[in-house]
Amino acid sequence: MPKDVITTRATDYNQWYLDIVREADMAEVAEVVRGCIVFKPTGWAIWELMQRQLDDRIKATGHANVQFPLLIPKSFLLREAEHVDGFAPEVAEVTRAGGEELAEPYVIRPTSETIIGYFYAKWIRSYRDLPVLYNQWCNVMRWELRTRPFLRTAEFIWQEGHTAHATEAEAEAETLKILYDVYADFAEQVMAVPVLRGLKTEKEKFPGALRSYCIEAMMQDGRALQAGTSHNLGQNFAKAFGITYTDQHNTVQHCWTTSWGVSTRLIGALIMTHSDDEGLVLPPRLAPTQVVVVPIYKNDEERGLVMAAVTQLTAAWAGRLRFKIDDRDHVTPGFKFNEWEIKGVPVRVEVGPKDVAKGSVALARRDVPGRAGKSFVPQDGLTERIIALLDEIQASLYQRALAFRTEHSAFVSTYAELKQQVERGFAWAYWDGTTEDEQRIQEETRATIRCLPLEQANAPGRCVYTGRETTRQVVFARAY
Amino acid sequence: MPKDVITTRATDYNQWYLDIVREADMAEVAEVVRGCIVFKPTGWAIWELMQRQLDDRIKATGHANVQFPLLIPKSFLLREAEHVDGFAPEVAEVTRAGGEELAEPYVIRPTSETIIGYFYAKWIRSYRDLPVLYNQWCNVMRWELRTRPFLRTAEFIWQEGHTAHATEAEAEAETLKILYDVYADFAEQVMAVPVLRGLKTEKEKFPGALRSYCIEAMMQDGRALQAGTSHNLGQNFAKAFGITYTDQHNTVQHCWTTSWGVSTRLIGALIMTHSDDEGLVLPPRLAPTQVVVVPIYKNDEERGLVMAAVTQLTAAWAGRLRFKIDDRDHVTPGFKFNEWEIKGVPVRVEVGPKDVAKGSVALARRDVPGRAGKSFVPQDGLTERIIALLDEIQASLYQRALAFRTEHSAFVSTYAELKQQVERGFAWAYWDGTTEDEQRIQEETRATIRCLPLEQANAPGRCVYTGRETTRQVVFARAY
Repeated sequence: MPKDVITTRATDYNQWYLDIVREADMAEVAEVVRGCIVFKPTGWAIWELMQRQLDDRIKATGHANVQFPLLIPKSFLLREAEHVDGFAPEVAEVTRAGGEELAEPYVIRPTSETIIGYFYAKWIRSYRDLPVLYNQWCNVMRWELRTRPFLRTAEFIWQEGHTAHATEAEAEAETLKILYDVYADFAEQVMAVPVLRGLKTEKEKFPGALRSYCIEAMMQDGRALQAGTSHNLGQNFAKAFGITYTDQHNTVQHCWTTSWGVSTRLIGALIMTHSDDEGLVLPPRLAPTQVVVVPIYKNDEERGLVMAAVTQLTAAWAGRLRFKIDDRDHVTPGFKFNEWEIKGVPVRVEVGPKDVAKGSVALARRDVPGRAGKSFVPQDGLTERIIALLDEIQASLYQRALAFRTEHSAFVSTYAELKQQVERGFAWAYWDGTTEDEQRIQEETRATIRCLPLEQANAPGRCVYTGRETTRQVVFARAY
Repeated sequence: MPKDVITTRATDYNQWYLDIVREADMAEVAEVVRGCIVFKPTGWAIWELMQRQLDDRIKATGHANVQFPLLIPKSFLLREAEHVDGFAPEVAEVTRAGGEELAEPYVIRPTSETIIGYFYAKWIRSYRDLPVLYNQWCNVMRWELRTRPFLRTAEFIWQEGHTAHATEAEAEAETLKILYDVYADFAEQVMAVPVLRGLKTEKEKFPGALRSYCIEAMMQDGRALQAGTSHNLGQNFAKAFGITYTDQHNTVQHCWTTSWGVSTRLIGALIMTHSDDEGLVLPPRLAPTQVVVVPIYKNDEERGLVMAAVTQLTAAWAGRLRFKIDDRDHVTPGFKFNEWEIKGVPVRVEVGPKDVAKGSVALARRDVPGRAGKSFVPQDGLTERIIALLDEIQASLYQRALAFRTEHSAFVSTYAELKQQVERGFAWAYWDGTTEDEQRIQEETRATIRCLPLEQANAPGRCVYTGRETTRQVVFARAY
């Protein structure tokens, strides 16, 4: 497996991404099913680790998992006006089943607000039934024109939370709790990806939402990636589906609902935040294999000696580390090093006859390539040393990504500066324009307002486009 | 919540089942999506526990998880002759997407042998690539005429394993390993459901398989339920999709493939094996809540006293027990007892002011209703006592189900006996008939050959139908 199977980032960032996806055994484009991919073992194992850690957070914040049907009667989409405009053009329709034409077609869910709204209307009667805090892990389908593995695919896997509340304040608190305690916390602590927490503009919000919040990450090419969204749906879906409750004063009220989701697109964000020209780089908390042990020997005698040491060294690892011993005989150690480097395993342990004699091993960290990342350490205390090293790598990847974002972010005061800055990263700016202004800027610069960051100074300044005074700052960027 | 919301089993077993599904908050029929259900929190939480424990076993036997697309080009189904006959009549078809008619329709996967066969043909080149041992957790769709929650639904959730091997012997070993080490072990150890391990007849095998193995369980009405299947597909799909490899002698050979699956139908098996006229009964290993603590008090002072004791008693439970403290104030203890009984929580702990004074609690086990299942025990050592009790309940449920199966199984020597026995349970019989004989018996008795049990005496006897001498025994039963 020659190294040059991976295009360098400088040569072609897009091709580099596709090369990583392929060579790290993450996914394959399923050319016979338009816009879909096959998740291969490494890709799916990363998703399982994401799912487990997200699910823990979703349950810890009081939500229960449920599962609604894949199919939605097509007429359901029509009930919420913005929603149908947003999703109707990109649905896949089931028109035949069991050998017969269906009287009313179904759509494969592009998202489940409508079918869930229908059931919430049946289930919720009294204020005592509220809040309803449900989530589901499932596949959804949107017939996208241009697709890229993980980032945009016709079918994707995600979780979608759907909650119903008695008051606007509770719905808003839920929306922000998910944004901060679940999504942003997961992105930064588990994915080691720093994110902006922000509000979407009217132009960019979810079809049918009152307000959409998001977390936005910066990729290595300076572009933004929306990594998760949390929507306060107001009473829009409650009115469309008749989700009402009787309050303490025996008055019938419409509920306030929310929805929020993250998807397998997070895998794309992970790749484009940390990986390098040698292959995938994974934060230890999402690495299916955290440590690979490569025994080195030239003959059967050395093999016996080395493997005995490896067995002893790894005896206490089960349950503490996710590890592999690569004892394949038909490939060389060099081939193995390269393969595990491409697959992003955070730590490699090499054990040869000399190491056995000296009571040491060689330890190589994936995030620091070459000699700089390699050290020779005693076998004594190796387990604790590796666990500490994994923590260090996790923290270091986050810091590196944060430093990159800082370097590639700038405050811009003029439209000319904005145009320049979106070539290299995030452009922070005062903003008081209209949706039409936003549209024009997008056409001229290919950049969009990614969000109004929630943490911002309240000092006034002048809008980068209209020159009007405002206290509102936004972040412009080109986006995936 | 009056007790009579659940029909007794003696009155109407079918209605009893539907009542349990509804009252235990397991599922709801999604009447707007034909033949589909909504999995509600209890139902989905049980599935998550099943999935986790099955997945552990699937990975422990060397398999990796992957994910293939939901949609399959319709023409793929046609490539394996038996397969298309089996599945084409019941598929749902996507004919429009993104606002346009599709040139070739897709079907929503009824099972994934075909699309996976297509990719295995691309991926497998050499004997070094074998075996390929993949599994996926996903939804599938079969447009069934008659549906029942969990047991038979248009959409259902399952895992489907798909493996490719160099030789028939390896494929056969894989098929049996899944049957014994994964499915039968899970059914008996986790679900507490005894199962027969057997081979399907030609009439009952999977469309396209060489041999289908199954685990069969007995429900409380004496009917059989196929709880899992494992298929040796021979070279049928390998030939249909061109899955070949180059062996050590540089000869191109067709692979031998297998597939195997269990689904959310297991939840139906669980209900119909253990539950009673009071509601759901769950084996502790699948109980989302294993212990519910109900504090009992009449005023605020008592409440303070009792809740302090409850907090202390449960302090060490996190991570060891799945438990709930039901401290709702607006419902009575009696209401709570009833609700948790219906929902199948294995152990109930009651703590009142007298218990606090005496340093005791009341302990009630769900599997032994009424006074017989209730005891007063010291607070000291309560955690260990409950853990031991959960083990005892798990074992006891299995033994009870096994005793029931034994009582409702009989060896039959004549067709008249067979007709009688299938009214009450499993009929073991010698068998040397044809597929046509089997068909005729089904029409006359509504019973089918569930399997040829793998563990059987090899002594000869006379076929229950033809009278011919044979050593082959089968089990007849009416089935779900």
